Amino acid sequence: MTLRFGVIGTGAIGRDHIRRMTNTLSGGEIVAVTDVNQEAAKQAVGQFKLNAEIYPDDQSLVNAENVDAVLVTSWGPAHEQSVLAAIKAGKYVFCEKPLAATAAGCMNIVEAEIKHGKRLVQVGFMRRYDSGYVQLKEALDSNMIGEPLIIRCAHRNPSCAETYSTDMAVTDTLIHEIDVLHWLIDDDYKSVQAIFPKKTKRALDHLQDPQIFLIETERGVHIHAEVFVNCKYGYDIQCEIVGEEGIIKLPEVSSILIRKNAQLSKNILMDWKERFIDAYDKELQSFIDSIRETGEPSGPTAWDGYIAAVTADACVKAQKTGVREPIALKEKPDFYQDGSESKR
Amino acid sequence: MTLRFGVIGTGAIGRDHIRRMTNTLSGGEIVAVTDVNQEAAKQAVGQFKLNAEIYPDDQSLVNAENVDAVLVTSWGPAHEQSVLAAIKAGKYVFCEKPLAATAAGCMNIVEAEIKHGKRLVQVGFMRRYDSGYVQLKEALDSNMIGEPLIIRCAHRNPSCAETYSTDMAVTDTLIHEIDVLHWLIDDDYKSVQAIFPKKTKRALDHLQDPQIFLIETERGVHIHAEVFVNCKYGYDIQCEIVGEEGIIKLPEVSSILIRKNAQLSKNILMDWKERFIDAYDKELQSFIDSIRETGEPSGPTAWDGYIAAVTADACVKAQKTGVREPIALKEKPDFYQDGSESKR
Amino acid sequence: MTLRFGVIGTGAIGRDHIRRMTNTLSGGEIVAVTDVNQEAAKQAVGQFKLNAEIYPDDQSLVNAENVDAVLVTSWGPAHEQSVLAAIKAGKYVFCEKPLAATAAGCMNIVEAEIKHGKRLVQVGFMRRYDSGYVQLKEALDSNMIGEPLIIRCAHRNPSCAETYSTDMAVTDTLIHEIDVLHWLIDDDYKSVQAIFPKKTKRALDHLQDPQIFLIETERGVHIHAEVFVNCKYGYDIQCEIVGEEGIIKLPEVSSILIRKNAQLSKNILMDWKERFIDAYDKELQSFIDSIRETGEPSGPTAWDGYIAAVTADACVKAQKTGVREPIALKEKPDFYQDGSESKR
Amino acid sequence: MTLRFGVIGTGAIGRDHIRRMTNTLSGGEIVAVTDVNQEAAKQAVGQFKLNAEIYPDDQSLVNAENVDAVLVTSWGPAHEQSVLAAIKAGKYVFCEKPLAATAAGCMNIVEAEIKHGKRLVQVGFMRRYDSGYVQLKEALDSNMIGEPLIIRCAHRNPSCAETYSTDMAVTDTLIHEIDVLHWLIDDDYKSVQAIFPKKTKRALDHLQDPQIFLIETERGVHIHAEVFVNCKYGYDIQCEIVGEEGIIKLPEVSSILIRKNAQLSKNILMDWKERFIDAYDKELQSFIDSIRETGEPSGPTAWDGYIAAVTADACVKAQKTGVREPIALKEKPDFYQDGSESKR
Repeated sequence: MTLRFGVIGTGAIGRDHIRRMTNTLSGGEIVAVTDVNQEAAKQAVGQFKLNAEIYPDDQSLVNAENVDAVLVTSWGPAHEQSVLAAIKAGKYVFCEKPLAATAAGCMNIVEAEIKHGKRLVQVGFMRRYDSGYVQLKEALDSNMIGEPLIIRCAHRNPSCAETYSTDMAVTDTLIHEIDVLHWLIDDDYKSVQAIFPKKTKRALDHLQDPQIFLIETERGVHIHAEVFVNCKYGYDIQCEIVGEEGIIKLPEVSSILIRKNAQLSKNILMDWKERFIDAYDKELQSFIDSIRETGEPSGPTAWDGYIAAVTADACVKAQKTGVREPIALKEKPDFYQDGSESKR
Repeated sequence: MTLRFGVIGTGAIGRDHIRRMTNTLSGGEIVAVTDVNQEAAKQAVGQFKLNAEIYPDDQSLVNAENVDAVLVTSWGPAHEQSVLAAIKAGKYVFCEKPLAATAAGCMNIVEAEIKHGKRLVQVGFMRRYDSGYVQLKEALDSNMIGEPLIIRCAHRNPSCAETYSTDMAVTDTLIHEIDVLHWLIDDDYKSVQAIFPKKTKRALDHLQDPQIFLIETERGVHIHAEVFVNCKYGYDIQCEIVGEEGIIKLPEVSSILIRKNAQLSKNILMDWKERFIDAYDKELQSFIDSIRETGEPSGPTAWDGYIAAVTADACVKAQKTGVREPIALKEKPDFYQDGSESKR
Repeated sequence: MTLRFGVIGTGAIGRDHIRRMTNTLSGGEIVAVTDVNQEAAKQAVGQFKLNAEIYPDDQSLVNAENVDAVLVTSWGPAHEQSVLAAIKAGKYVFCEKPLAATAAGCMNIVEAEIKHGKRLVQVGFMRRYDSGYVQLKEALDSNMIGEPLIIRCAHRNPSCAETYSTDMAVTDTLIHEIDVLHWLIDDDYKSVQAIFPKKTKRALDHLQDPQIFLIETERGVHIHAEVFVNCKYGYDIQCEIVGEEGIIKLPEVSSILIRKNAQLSKNILMDWKERFIDAYDKELQSFIDSIRETGEPSGPTAWDGYIAAVTADACVKAQKTGVREPIALKEKPDFYQDGSESKR
Repeated sequence: MTLRFGVIGTGAIGRDHIRRMTNTLSGGEIVAVTDVNQEAAKQAVGQFKLNAEIYPDDQSLVNAENVDAVLVTSWGPAHEQSVLAAIKAGKYVFCEKPLAATAAGCMNIVEAEIKHGKRLVQVGFMRRYDSGYVQLKEALDSNMIGEPLIIRCAHRNPSCAETYSTDMAVTDTLIHEIDVLHWLIDDDYKSVQAIFPKKTKRALDHLQDPQIFLIETERGVHIHAEVFVNCKYGYDIQCEIVGEEGIIKLPEVSSILIRKNAQLSKNILMDWKERFIDAYDKELQSFIDSIRETGEPSGPTAWDGYIAAVTADACVKAQKTGVREPIALKEKPDFYQDGSESKR
């Protein structure tokens, strides 16, 4: 049984998922496409020689009989409505981040999914599928380092667009750490404080760069997260977890070892698109496989999308107030308890 | 256009390729299966829920109208006949190593393919698709380290089966280095000398382990290749290339970095199957993609299969004589010149 | 000209310096010894076969004609009086940390030295002589990474004594980071905040462990310093500096690389005494050499001792208040301006 | 008791040892100097402000009453006569490599020392004092990797003088590996084969570069030693030992870790003098300490000097003949059995 997909939004990310589904993955196929710009939808169909129907809007696409699952890759503010429509139609939905533009919007989706009674939604947080993070998760779950106490992480880009603003350090950048860290340590966030260190001369006037976020979890884990989007030297994702019995750290990106010009070196990526290329493939393949095998997606849930939204709101507030801000999550519904227990 | 495959041989490797084609890759499908043990063929069809016909022998499978390409995963001595049948039928063929049991058999295939006039055959040397080797190849082709002068490599297994014999160090183990090294440096082998160092106490009486092969290429590159199949500590593939301007080395397998028990460590694999798991996927996906896009496979050719056979023969002879043995290749047919020129 | 030393205090550190001076270093000799426990002083003379006179107290030792320089290795509260006596007598003095028990005591020494008119005092902060820190300093001074923006460091011990208390995380442990970091970046501290993450189960009830200190410098550098004295896995000193153009990190302790038992590993020290063994030798040799060559010591000054005291006081206060505390240094006297300008 | 040294030969190495003895080490002092160029001897005395007498020749210096030990740092062909004179006078002697210009000359020294009845001679092979090699030795002696089976090593210089000739790859370069490897594995050499790989374009016409030496030991260990003196990228010493239970490898030179310009790098030395600077200090300090504590030196013996000479002769012969040449050592005299047994 091939899973038949409808795509809502054929911008860069939408076309990338279409390419992935068509040329790389197994078990899925694009049968429907829509975009607010109908011409863009047509071009996507042509570019990838899809045998797919073009729909006028998300509503009609979602309700098409031959559509089993929906890929939501439109712009952020439109996500909520498409996801709700998919849930209403009982269709699976893979939604790129953010799940909704607001925490309240995420909660609407959570409630709709619970009402539907079965998991339909997966949010596009791909890091959980990166082999380095998977290794960290396995080490933590097997209790290799005991209880986690401190996490240090960094998210660095060589440079950023002029339009990149101080709050985007949270909503576009830190958002990936926000999702992956609570998953790694199976804990909830409690509060956050933002610190602005000395600013690099490479950042434009309107942008604070680098930034530090000090996040505390319910169990007391101290997270020190650096966002530095004009670091110049490379695209670099670091994550180190200090536990009671030892410390584990994300691998460097695999590179040949070079002895040349008085240096022993490895290459660092400059382009963020290469860093998680395998993880993007794996998250969507997992979405397909999990639905085909179990009838439900197994990746980041609507509840994870809600956590990301609430936490991001608190981080943005902390940027402005300079003091520690609470991260006030509602209680996790039973619906999202997966019953899995780590060995710690 | 989906490429329709027939599989000849449904043993462990055959079933692994069936799984890969069915669950992981894009653009191919299994439509025909045969095995000398018809019951095994039936089980494979059942296990993977294939919509595939079972044929009584390779001949009939190859000639089936709906078969576009053949996967030869039977035992080695049967490969030649199946590959020749496929070429005769004008079908694409992906053949696991060895291409044929003898150098003469490989040459029969080479001649048949040349006579057919178009590339049909790809041999299953997966290392060329490993990201580490690809990085080495790119570095060499971009002239990063100038002319290569010396190569040191090692192929180590924690332990081996009782049935593993001294010559299998060449035919089962070194064979992968034989293929990948001449491809890396775009050079031909000239001679080989075998050295038996002190034997590990872990090797059974009948087995020489470790072994060293000193291979010289036409341009004078000195290759020092270690085979050590009872090294105990892990499955470990090493390759370092010394050039005029610098040295490059295969990456270690990506692993989290662990601080624990007075050690700073990375994990080493114990199971060889994990080491090239991505490369296996990529080689077969590349076979499919290349045929769909250009009408010919682009991986290791029948000529590469012939090189491997002649070189392996010389290495086995060198094990016995203890002296330097020539590696006497016929001249490379124009048919296999790909016109690509490295920048060196 | 051999520099003739008097030693005040023949406990463990005192005897270690006597051993060093006698068996390892060049250009110095122990000619006088005192200890509040005269028996201990006698034993030290015997143990190292010193040709040295035993004095009843620091005052008489300092004033002995044949004493050129004094090593103050008594317990902390006694340091101030001995150092002041040495300055009054115009003798060079190498004083183990702390320079004095209070910031006010350090200021007394600073004022006495200024009044004397020439540098006499060096404080025993040995990290500035560690080859790793020296490399960091050279990289920063040569502007390799541009302006420093963020520093992350960690000071970890496998375990600590029962008597180790929460404030000793500052006065015994962080004190080394306090000295070395402002020297590295040539900057002054401005404020500090202490954070207590989840406590390791290995720490006794009375001890907060690990602890985090967030220090801000005058130029805005953000320092994240971890103290973790029951980390179990090893004695480990980490320091990473994020700059505008790149990042530099302290080397791991030099170790052979081991492939064994499915791990690729280096050794981590368990004993702190081994970590800076070379630096201890170099700091005292430098004290001797600098005085012999220039007439003044060139290492950490009395002013550095004052900075350490003021900063440590603020860190201890921050442990108690939980809020950001100012680090209020007086203005640096011209006397301690060394005229050196980094290239940044 | 200070050990009083006479120095024979005040060229670059001689002056370096004078500087070391005078400014860095403890327990030794230069009291006598000679050089075939008396003016050079005078300059050395002046440069280091030595309180030392200048002698007209080695004979008179050796016999001076206040000379306890002799440093032989003249040119190689003169070593034998000076060492023999020192032994005759019953003086300790530290002799830079080579111990003598020929194997026969070394044997003369061995016989003279045995006749004298006590160890007097230490040869200047400093690598045994390098902390990396010491760690390898400790690992081997503690049986960490079981029996050694294969050694791969490399000795690389960025470039060499025009006068450097093909045989100097043995006598000036490989000589250090020759000494340190048999010490590491406590084994004797049996035979050697030389291989000349493709030559780098950076080597002058008269020089073969790189070169490979394949040495076999009595226990069957296979050594693959690369000498590459125009490798361009750095001064780099590599050594890896493959054993039955694991593999150990010499550490890279300690360097800060740098993230800059899309590379994660460590520095490689360009100047060989920096590589073993600590080992030079330690070998001479050990010579002094061992004599003061035990009455005999404990470093490389005259017999080790003889081993180096015989092995180097065989390597040079192997360069010319192209075939495997025996390394025919006489039986080791009981005098040089140190009774130490490794745990293997």
